[in-house]
Amino acid sequence: MAAANGDASHGSGGVPRPTNPMVTPLLTDLYQFTMAYAYWKAGKHLDRAVFDLYFRKNPFGGEFTIFGGLEECIRFIANFKFTEDEIKFLQSVMPTCEDGFFEYLRSIDCSDVEVYAIPEGYVVFPKVPLMRIEGPVAVVQLLETPFLNLVNYASLVTTNAARHRLVAGKSKNLLEFGLRRAQGPDGGISASRYCYMGGFDATSNVAAGRLFGIPIRGTHSHAFVSSFMGLDDITDKALSSSDGSKKCEDFGSLVQNWLIRIQESSSLHGTFGETNQSELAAFTSYALAFPNSFLALVDTYDVTRSGVPNFCAVALALNDMGYKAVGIRLDSGDLAYLSIESRKFFRAIEKEFEVVGFGKTSITASNDLNEETIDALNKQGHEVDAFGIGTYLVTCYAQAALGCVFKLVEINKQPRIKLSEDVTKVSIPCKKKCYRLYGKEGYPLVDIMTGEDEPGPKATWHLHVLSVVILYAIVTILRNLKQLVGFMIYHLFIDW
Amino acid sequence: MAAANGDASHGSGGVPRPTNPMVTPLLTDLYQFTMAYAYWKAGKHLDRAVFDLYFRKNPFGGEFTIFGGLEECIRFIANFKFTEDEIKFLQSVMPTCEDGFFEYLRSIDCSDVEVYAIPEGYVVFPKVPLMRIEGPVAVVQLLETPFLNLVNYASLVTTNAARHRLVAGKSKNLLEFGLRRAQGPDGGISASRYCYMGGFDATSNVAAGRLFGIPIRGTHSHAFVSSFMGLDDITDKALSSSDGSKKCEDFGSLVQNWLIRIQESSSLHGTFGETNQSELAAFTSYALAFPNSFLALVDTYDVTRSGVPNFCAVALALNDMGYKAVGIRLDSGDLAYLSIESRKFFRAIEKEFEVVGFGKTSITASNDLNEETIDALNKQGHEVDAFGIGTYLVTCYAQAALGCVFKLVEINKQPRIKLSEDVTKVSIPCKKKCYRLYGKEGYPLVDIMTGEDEPGPKATWHLHVLSVVILYAIVTILRNLKQLVGFMIYHLFIDW
Repeated sequence: MAAANGDASHGSGGVPRPTNPMVTPLLTDLYQFTMAYAYWKAGKHLDRAVFDLYFRKNPFGGEFTIFGGLEECIRFIANFKFTEDEIKFLQSVMPTCEDGFFEYLRSIDCSDVEVYAIPEGYVVFPKVPLMRIEGPVAVVQLLETPFLNLVNYASLVTTNAARHRLVAGKSKNLLEFGLRRAQGPDGGISASRYCYMGGFDATSNVAAGRLFGIPIRGTHSHAFVSSFMGLDDITDKALSSSDGSKKCEDFGSLVQNWLIRIQESSSLHGTFGETNQSELAAFTSYALAFPNSFLALVDTYDVTRSGVPNFCAVALALNDMGYKAVGIRLDSGDLAYLSIESRKFFRAIEKEFEVVGFGKTSITASNDLNEETIDALNKQGHEVDAFGIGTYLVTCYAQAALGCVFKLVEINKQPRIKLSEDVTKVSIPCKKKCYRLYGKEGYPLVDIMTGEDEPGPKATWHLHVLSVVILYAIVTILRNLKQLVGFMIYHLFIDW
Repeated sequence: MAAANGDASHGSGGVPRPTNPMVTPLLTDLYQFTMAYAYWKAGKHLDRAVFDLYFRKNPFGGEFTIFGGLEECIRFIANFKFTEDEIKFLQSVMPTCEDGFFEYLRSIDCSDVEVYAIPEGYVVFPKVPLMRIEGPVAVVQLLETPFLNLVNYASLVTTNAARHRLVAGKSKNLLEFGLRRAQGPDGGISASRYCYMGGFDATSNVAAGRLFGIPIRGTHSHAFVSSFMGLDDITDKALSSSDGSKKCEDFGSLVQNWLIRIQESSSLHGTFGETNQSELAAFTSYALAFPNSFLALVDTYDVTRSGVPNFCAVALALNDMGYKAVGIRLDSGDLAYLSIESRKFFRAIEKEFEVVGFGKTSITASNDLNEETIDALNKQGHEVDAFGIGTYLVTCYAQAALGCVFKLVEINKQPRIKLSEDVTKVSIPCKKKCYRLYGKEGYPLVDIMTGEDEPGPKATWHLHVLSVVILYAIVTILRNLKQLVGFMIYHLFIDW
């Protein structure tokens, strides 16, 4: 795993810095600093406060959320320290504040902060705290905005990815193609990371592949196809066979011969006429560059009359040389119909030319896909093996924000509540414990919250049938910042 | 202006590096590299290509878009160069590619690339190219994904901000409060920057304020209010007067005296009973910290029965000491009603206690505001002076993505088109010039595109009534990367 923030990727305590170097203690709302100053002036800044981070409603009209962003929060607090330049900037923004306050800011790290959190990647529900943050009130307030920023989108897009996986089914390949439409550079990079966590197989995003070790996929675009005039554009058309035993000096001619054979074949005769020569040249060029992984975008001109026949000609020529083409991508039109027609064509080729397995050539679909369009494709019937999903996935178009909040629930051991004219905005006071109850079959049934000091669900109802998991893992940043105490999950086995 | 990317903020050519250090040549789709390799294998990589970057439809069901993101694109190409680590990573991803290709990548910069662009911040329309990018096809393809990533969200959120400004009106203060709900860290930072470009007055985001010189605003949260038990929490209650001539040793008592006077005043008698003491303590503490800029969040418990009376008591105590309170913020409930009631209260205070101008105390509203809710407030009538807008603004909730595309329109001086089963996806071939025609009153009338070599709109129809502006500015990265040729805008004056 490479770090975007270069050489200084590890802080003094060995915990890596946040992936995005823009995540600094200044990535917060100004009021966190004005409040810190008011606390400091009032002599209250060291009061021990407990905040809950939670959301109020599952996104996308759904019944679950997946928690993402915890690792980045931990990286952030483990390396939390103001630079002298940052202090100077804050002094310029708050010129009436006393020097002693900035001395205090200089001294701050998060060694007094304790974080209890549900492990990242867990399914979570409204109102159950994803994180409980305890520490000096002035310090913990400074964490509110960055924690919310790091958790809100991460959890939202992970959930979105998981929902796409559920609708597409386990057997399909899901590819995240969203970088170009994402909300900024790390909207793109975060999307790639969290979509992978949410169940996607790969991304098109090279930077995310490098940062997080996610498999990267990609072939060519429409521009590649239309950039060719014809086969004469390719200066070197030689291709060695897969096993190195022979060499074809003019792979373009081999392709053209196959195109004629397909056109004249009994089962395909008349299904297409002249195919587009710039497309044929582009496919040939791509196959010469990547004979082991030839996948062609077939809708630049006409899928059934040009793209698919051209692809098959190149794929059969590759087959002659011992290579197996991967497949096609459809990026416009009626994807259900075109995938079915393409599959028929592949099967006809398999039968006509006795190329075993050609009928199973992979079909990838893209073009503004989302949960609804995939569901519609499923209902119509289709022959798509892989979905490339971009805009709707990464921008969470159906609901572009998750409303995580960060609420004070206790200070100096006194419970605190936020009332509101809006009942849904009233907070639940006190430190909490949260349990997840599992049924006999191992499926979770319900989450239960209790006060920190209340007894848990009864453990006397026998020992082996139902498990109760305390959801919170303890993530303590030790005073010396040398290490994190890892996640600890307690399992209590009880009957229900 | 400080740079997020630290010391290495300026590339060799004097053009600053991209604001987000994560914007590197690897922030692109893998297929840009596989295509580059195929071009290189075919000997086509130096073919001179022309790409248009444009969008197909105005966002938010609206009639205009504002172009954002150009500066970051220019920073990106001016500093475009692969590091050895990046080359090694690409070799690991594309292990079958020949070494010569990676040598070629090592040699690439954007000195052969020309960019013609509409200036950033202009109002723009569908299908008119925002940028025309000319250069070696393999290099320009590598720019597709980062350019789209940098322009799509920037233009979308700038447009969204401008739409919020239009509905709120010129006289209102617009504050961007979106960092916590934005799509990741630089979703937040970019939003602050481009909302300011789109007509906002300030942001809550400290990091964005530092990076871009945007005014920063913020006061305190509900947690601050509920963290206080009572006035005893404040250890030092002394406050010197604004002119330094006197000192109040117990500002808390002064506040409490004012609260009693308000309660007993003839015009306000009976409008409220006991106010919340933790809130009163929090307001007092905040005023002691920021006597010159006291602004209180008044809806933690009850706006009319606690928040506003408590605010007024503190404001009147500050007034005694020569300070002028700024105002209140409402963050829940019926904002129209509450703002009107608060205004009435302020006017009654002004009259009762003869505090000139108190009736004009500023009222800020927040709480999930967007174009529709501000429009509804306008229709109901309200007394809000400033709007704090977050989630809906920065995530562009109403439409979370702009569909900018990057299409090949010419290669080696041959026009190219992308056909599609979907007619709206067909591209317009050839290099273009674009003119904006202005009416006598100086308002733009229409944009007109012509072929690059076609004559422009007739300049013979007199010289002074209507101006035609060639929209494209030429942004050429000189071979030595020493400087950018700045934007050049040609004005032709013609009659219409």
